[in-house]
Amino acid sequence: MGECLLLLHPSTGNGLVESLQSCPATNPSMLNVHLVPHTHDDVGWLKTVDQYYYGDRNNIQHAGVQYILDSVIDQLQKDPARRFIYVETAFFYRWWKQQNQSTQRIVTQLVNEGRLEFINGGWCMSDEATTHYSAVIDQMTLGLRFLNDTFGECGRPRVAWHIDPFGHAREHASIFAQMGYDGFFFGRLDYQDKARRMKTKEMEMLWRASESLTPPLADLFTGVLPNGYNPPEGFCWDQSCDDAPIRDDPDLEDYNVDEIVQKFLNAGFYKANHIIMTMGSDFQYENANLWYKNMDKLIKYVNALQAKGSKVNVLYSTPSCYLQELNLANLTWPLKTDDFFPYADDAHDFWTGYFTSRPALKLYERLSNSRLQTCNQLEVLGGPKSKSGPFGEGDSDTMKRAMGVAQHHDAVSGTEKQHVAYDYARRLATGWAHCEVLVRNSLAILSGSEAPHVFCENLNISVCPLTESSHKFSMNVYNPLGRTVSWPVRLPVNGSVYSVTDANGRAVDSQVGNVFISLKCTCYIYDMKSSCLLPLLSVRWFHSSSAKPTATLFDILHYFLNYFGVSVNTMVGIMCVFVLFDNHRYNASAGNNKESPQTSGAYIFRPNSSDPFVINKTAETQIVTVSSTVQEVTQWFSPWVSQVVRLYEGHRELELEWTVGPVPVADGLGKEVITRLDTDIKSSDYFYTDSNGREVLERRKDYRPTWELKQTEPVAGNYYPINSRAYIKDDKHQLTVVTDRSQGASSLYNGSLEIMLHRRLLYDDYRGVGEPLSEPGDFSDGLVARGRLLLTFTPPDTAADVHRPLAQGMVLQPLLSFQDGTPSANTKLEVCRGSMDG
Amino acid sequence: MGECLLLLHPSTGNGLVESLQSCPATNPSMLNVHLVPHTHDDVGWLKTVDQYYYGDRNNIQHAGVQYILDSVIDQLQKDPARRFIYVETAFFYRWWKQQNQSTQRIVTQLVNEGRLEFINGGWCMSDEATTHYSAVIDQMTLGLRFLNDTFGECGRPRVAWHIDPFGHAREHASIFAQMGYDGFFFGRLDYQDKARRMKTKEMEMLWRASESLTPPLADLFTGVLPNGYNPPEGFCWDQSCDDAPIRDDPDLEDYNVDEIVQKFLNAGFYKANHIIMTMGSDFQYENANLWYKNMDKLIKYVNALQAKGSKVNVLYSTPSCYLQELNLANLTWPLKTDDFFPYADDAHDFWTGYFTSRPALKLYERLSNSRLQTCNQLEVLGGPKSKSGPFGEGDSDTMKRAMGVAQHHDAVSGTEKQHVAYDYARRLATGWAHCEVLVRNSLAILSGSEAPHVFCENLNISVCPLTESSHKFSMNVYNPLGRTVSWPVRLPVNGSVYSVTDANGRAVDSQVGNVFISLKCTCYIYDMKSSCLLPLLSVRWFHSSSAKPTATLFDILHYFLNYFGVSVNTMVGIMCVFVLFDNHRYNASAGNNKESPQTSGAYIFRPNSSDPFVINKTAETQIVTVSSTVQEVTQWFSPWVSQVVRLYEGHRELELEWTVGPVPVADGLGKEVITRLDTDIKSSDYFYTDSNGREVLERRKDYRPTWELKQTEPVAGNYYPINSRAYIKDDKHQLTVVTDRSQGASSLYNGSLEIMLHRRLLYDDYRGVGEPLSEPGDFSDGLVARGRLLLTFTPPDTAADVHRPLAQGMVLQPLLSFQDGTPSANTKLEVCRGSMDG
Repeated sequence: MGECLLLLHPSTGNGLVESLQSCPATNPSMLNVHLVPHTHDDVGWLKTVDQYYYGDRNNIQHAGVQYILDSVIDQLQKDPARRFIYVETAFFYRWWKQQNQSTQRIVTQLVNEGRLEFINGGWCMSDEATTHYSAVIDQMTLGLRFLNDTFGECGRPRVAWHIDPFGHAREHASIFAQMGYDGFFFGRLDYQDKARRMKTKEMEMLWRASESLTPPLADLFTGVLPNGYNPPEGFCWDQSCDDAPIRDDPDLEDYNVDEIVQKFLNAGFYKANHIIMTMGSDFQYENANLWYKNMDKLIKYVNALQAKGSKVNVLYSTPSCYLQELNLANLTWPLKTDDFFPYADDAHDFWTGYFTSRPALKLYERLSNSRLQTCNQLEVLGGPKSKSGPFGEGDSDTMKRAMGVAQHHDAVSGTEKQHVAYDYARRLATGWAHCEVLVRNSLAILSGSEAPHVFCENLNISVCPLTESSHKFSMNVYNPLGRTVSWPVRLPVNGSVYSVTDANGRAVDSQVGNVFISLKCTCYIYDMKSSCLLPLLSVRWFHSSSAKPTATLFDILHYFLNYFGVSVNTMVGIMCVFVLFDNHRYNASAGNNKESPQTSGAYIFRPNSSDPFVINKTAETQIVTVSSTVQEVTQWFSPWVSQVVRLYEGHRELELEWTVGPVPVADGLGKEVITRLDTDIKSSDYFYTDSNGREVLERRKDYRPTWELKQTEPVAGNYYPINSRAYIKDDKHQLTVVTDRSQGASSLYNGSLEIMLHRRLLYDDYRGVGEPLSEPGDFSDGLVARGRLLLTFTPPDTAADVHRPLAQGMVLQPLLSFQDGTPSANTKLEVCRGSMDG
Repeated sequence: MGECLLLLHPSTGNGLVESLQSCPATNPSMLNVHLVPHTHDDVGWLKTVDQYYYGDRNNIQHAGVQYILDSVIDQLQKDPARRFIYVETAFFYRWWKQQNQSTQRIVTQLVNEGRLEFINGGWCMSDEATTHYSAVIDQMTLGLRFLNDTFGECGRPRVAWHIDPFGHAREHASIFAQMGYDGFFFGRLDYQDKARRMKTKEMEMLWRASESLTPPLADLFTGVLPNGYNPPEGFCWDQSCDDAPIRDDPDLEDYNVDEIVQKFLNAGFYKANHIIMTMGSDFQYENANLWYKNMDKLIKYVNALQAKGSKVNVLYSTPSCYLQELNLANLTWPLKTDDFFPYADDAHDFWTGYFTSRPALKLYERLSNSRLQTCNQLEVLGGPKSKSGPFGEGDSDTMKRAMGVAQHHDAVSGTEKQHVAYDYARRLATGWAHCEVLVRNSLAILSGSEAPHVFCENLNISVCPLTESSHKFSMNVYNPLGRTVSWPVRLPVNGSVYSVTDANGRAVDSQVGNVFISLKCTCYIYDMKSSCLLPLLSVRWFHSSSAKPTATLFDILHYFLNYFGVSVNTMVGIMCVFVLFDNHRYNASAGNNKESPQTSGAYIFRPNSSDPFVINKTAETQIVTVSSTVQEVTQWFSPWVSQVVRLYEGHRELELEWTVGPVPVADGLGKEVITRLDTDIKSSDYFYTDSNGREVLERRKDYRPTWELKQTEPVAGNYYPINSRAYIKDDKHQLTVVTDRSQGASSLYNGSLEIMLHRRLLYDDYRGVGEPLSEPGDFSDGLVARGRLLLTFTPPDTAADVHRPLAQGMVLQPLLSFQDGTPSANTKLEVCRGSMDG
């Protein structure tokens, strides 16, 4: 109950349901129009989150959240009937800490009285296609915890509110249900789906959002808002709008009260007793007076007609109060069990490009999630001194907030402007810098040694100054997972012969080349009760060299398939298919298509042909190595597309390390590069994709479970987001791909699974970002992206046993740190941790 | 003293000068930077005055004055240090009457404390080039009276503030001085003049604004504002600006306090102890929080440096408080005795086109002034019943307000958008409709007859349904002037023979044609003490016709010159010259000139050649009439330029009735049509133009009295506004032209005087209006304008005796009204009035 000052419901005299008590009175014999004043404040998009907060760089977009909150708080005080909802805690947090006590008291009072209501309440309004559930839970926790710490029970959001994300994930609904939200509202869904729902009055439904949880554990009331999240046409009174204000002074020109009232009454309401109207939009209410002054008049003049027999009752309200009225009405809702992907707002406008947009940012966000978990764990393991220790002041909060904004639906989604993408990355880097101090402090506490640890951030591009220059160094591996993992490590070195030993001086199984050491480190669970095994590795350089055995692709596949007891005959069939890793590309529509001018862009995927182009049919294969540790083959498909196929000793998965870019665009065509895995699995148009890295949904080509799809984009209209994995299967076999970041995926042919790796485009796609998605590279004119796919080939019924641990290992990766020379004798590093309790 | 709540000056403990007492403390040992928060609210420009008030049609321009005042009043209450000035009473009046008592009390308190200060305070900020002083006095009276009635002494503006008008008239300064203003600030002056004044530190001066009034009666402190009326670059924090806000949270990105403070300190102040900074601009402060929040921070952080030795003290202030500090400093100022016309903001950018822009609106405004005076007089003469009498409810207030906004520097100036020009005209028409009722009531009271009076609005295009259809009608002439006038009347009729008699049945000297009756009516002064002569005319139609004598142009000029005893020889010389009414035109620059892309437009006059084109060297002359009443000759120069030359019996002036339009533009060239009067007067580059229709200033070609002019536009740079007259002279002769509206005029050759009559242009001139000045016509594709010039040719020392009464008669024209049939026997119309006391 907190310390809410409860306002009793005026029409009933008391409130049966706690959450009802501060809601405005409605009129049961009339159509009640719930005006919901709101602002939608992107936590970064065309401007960075702080530029939005301050109202900086208004030449890009006029938006200043500090002023929105200033203004709304002022206006709410002018009339107790007025209400406002606020959503994005990342912004509210910035504002709150700059307020003096007097303002904070006023705001608290407004919250307690239900006049200012927090809705959703996460740090941001997360993207649903490209986020991992663990990061979503973290960002929701960050926001909700702040609200709870600040306002107690009265600050608790009761409604989830994802009015802008471009499609909706079932896992998000499941999380919201499990978090205790009373309902969920969103604005965007497929235009065909929306038309049908409008017609059949199924805009509101019950979403059963989990196949594994027992109902109603993941059941959630879900409503589609009537106007997206905008006001009805002609009723936008924000400073950013041009709609006519209500001119009610008869002495002045253009008195328009009668006209506006009539227009409002003709606005075509739902045939229900209650209707919600979102009165606001992007960054609106910077000057809230404009909105409230005109809404005050609207309410006054529309309700004045009740005296003449009108049955329309307009009131200030909130989503919670609207939902309460629906609950009181005790209605039955249609059931929804799948999700709302992909999202299309017109026949050739599928928002399936952003599943892959900005692949490097998507990877960095995912790695940062892993690092944040490590940071959190070491903060606990190291105790209070980890935040202030021998290496200075460290914290995990900066990283939490950076990850919080990175979950935003224009952040990890890749749909922000380039300078904003850099800002998200910089925030993550800064977050990690704060964590690094904490981690160093914690490792020092845990090991009893203050010898500095070095982190090599650039191992993905084979750069680590310490390992490249030192003749003797040691490596720590911290495993954030709650179980033992085996993890391949590949370190750039300068010599040709090294010896690798573990902390006990035992030789470690490794392959030492003249530029790399590849090794597999086994990292055990940390047990709080007992001392942990220390896979501390000492690497010592020997001057010598050795001939190396070589492998062929055939050899590798042979090993790979061998695990599954596949016969040679079958294997050959499958192998034909694996020739396959020849990457393909789609050329992007440039806006000159006769059916629609829609281009491919940051949001939209629209190839100019349904058949992808093969980049090169005959890959140049460079055979590298076979050792007891790893076998690998590098394939070059073109100067800008290559792939290393690796099989690690003792591992059951095949690793594909792809490198794509800079994507050439001198031919005037944007390109979207996929890897396509063709098998003879009889998948019959079905395929499977995860939802936010947790449960898996069945997909079917050219089909939607809840309405009869008219397919208008045979490729883009079949793409779905994957966060951790996708698979195809038949009765006997399942090919599962585990990925290192969120991507778009589809299956367009029987036995085929394709994953979009990288995109570079030459046109904006008219959804507001105003830039073509053409990321610059550090060393070249376009971004080079690199990533890993892990393939497993299993019987369907045992597939999960393999891909689940693999996916977990991808999400929570071991943290490597290095020390020059021999570690001090009393080094006692506890590098593993106990079970996850997230 | 009123009921001001006086705040004592904190640093002195008491205030010697009444107006000082509510001013903020300054620091005498520092440079005091007076931040003056202000908004500049055009009373119509791109939108109509009511669209601006309400914030309607924001797609044209984002501006809503109701919100500005709402917002500023809110923000002023948040901190007693904050100040604001408000200028345009037309807007404040609209806002004030919509406020509840509580808000009105708050505002009154803010005014009493000097936190909200009215500056200028007229109904609008009048144009200075194209307004008549009588209308300026009226609009100032309207605004100041409202402020006085509402706020008493504390609402009295102490400073005149014309920050936007495009050049400054000496008569305006004189009026302001005589009205008791302490000083005058403006923003725009010639760029060469400004550069010189900046250099010589003469941005502030004493303006001795009358040649005839004894100093210091018309002396006025006058200051040129340093940044026009805008904030210094980089410090515009309005919602309409994109400058960086002050970001003072060190936890967020882009902390910029040090940078902003340094930039402010480097802003290059005047080398004085006080400097004024206008913090605002067009329609700013709609969301005043943005401004005040950032200025609060600026003041805080800049003044914080005083502790480290900084000598800069920033404070919220007002122009009055700044002026008070200047007064206290007891300085001496340079003297200014001419005016600030013409205004150029660059070498090829002379704002001399608007002197003539929208000639029909300019005439309608001038006629409306005349009508308003008549309306005012009849309101007094008819007593209270004139406002509510047999013809209904009438008032003069509507017309006063319409005239009030028409004086605005984007109204009668002709620099508004077309739809706004229509709005001004409509307001004047509505104002007159209210006055008409009042006038009818008053005439009924005065005459004792309720027979309805008809007003013929369209006599200028020869339309009057009553006179055209009636066989017998009577006409009243109301003379608003304080003396007897003789006034030619020309009525469209349908018959060919009429008899015209006065109220006593005596025949009136008239010329009756088959489409017109021309007559001269003598209208006497009304004497309150005695009954007035009634020049009530009865017109009766006779079916008959008569042969008419004819005149030649030579005859007319002969008569004209004969008045002045000019010898035949001289006359022939002068006549050569009068061949000259052949109108000329300038073709407008189209923006493709190599020296500058400046075009001719609503503001700017820029011919594409210094020599005007003769429209037609041989006019087709249609000889019309010689009678005892009038002799007239019509000349057709082209299908779109014609002129009637008239000489009335007993009159000493020659009337030129010009008709210009629709100006053809099919050749892709805009055109500016002038009439040029070439004489052999030895004017030696000197000519004379009136200032707001009152005193006259000497002009000299390619010369400015106060600085060494570098002439860059030989035509446009020599144009000056005339409101009522212009003349050239030598020792013996003076040619004076009296005009019916404001126009542009110049003398580019010895003995030549040219007047611009009409303009039609194809390009916008980049000063914001965003439209080419190409007025549509009612009956054709372009506006046809018609007007009158009265020419007198006299010895210089008696010229004023002739042109002064003529000009007065032009400004205050008799009002004609008509009644069908014979007036009732007991009609006793008092049609003239006593002496003007304006």
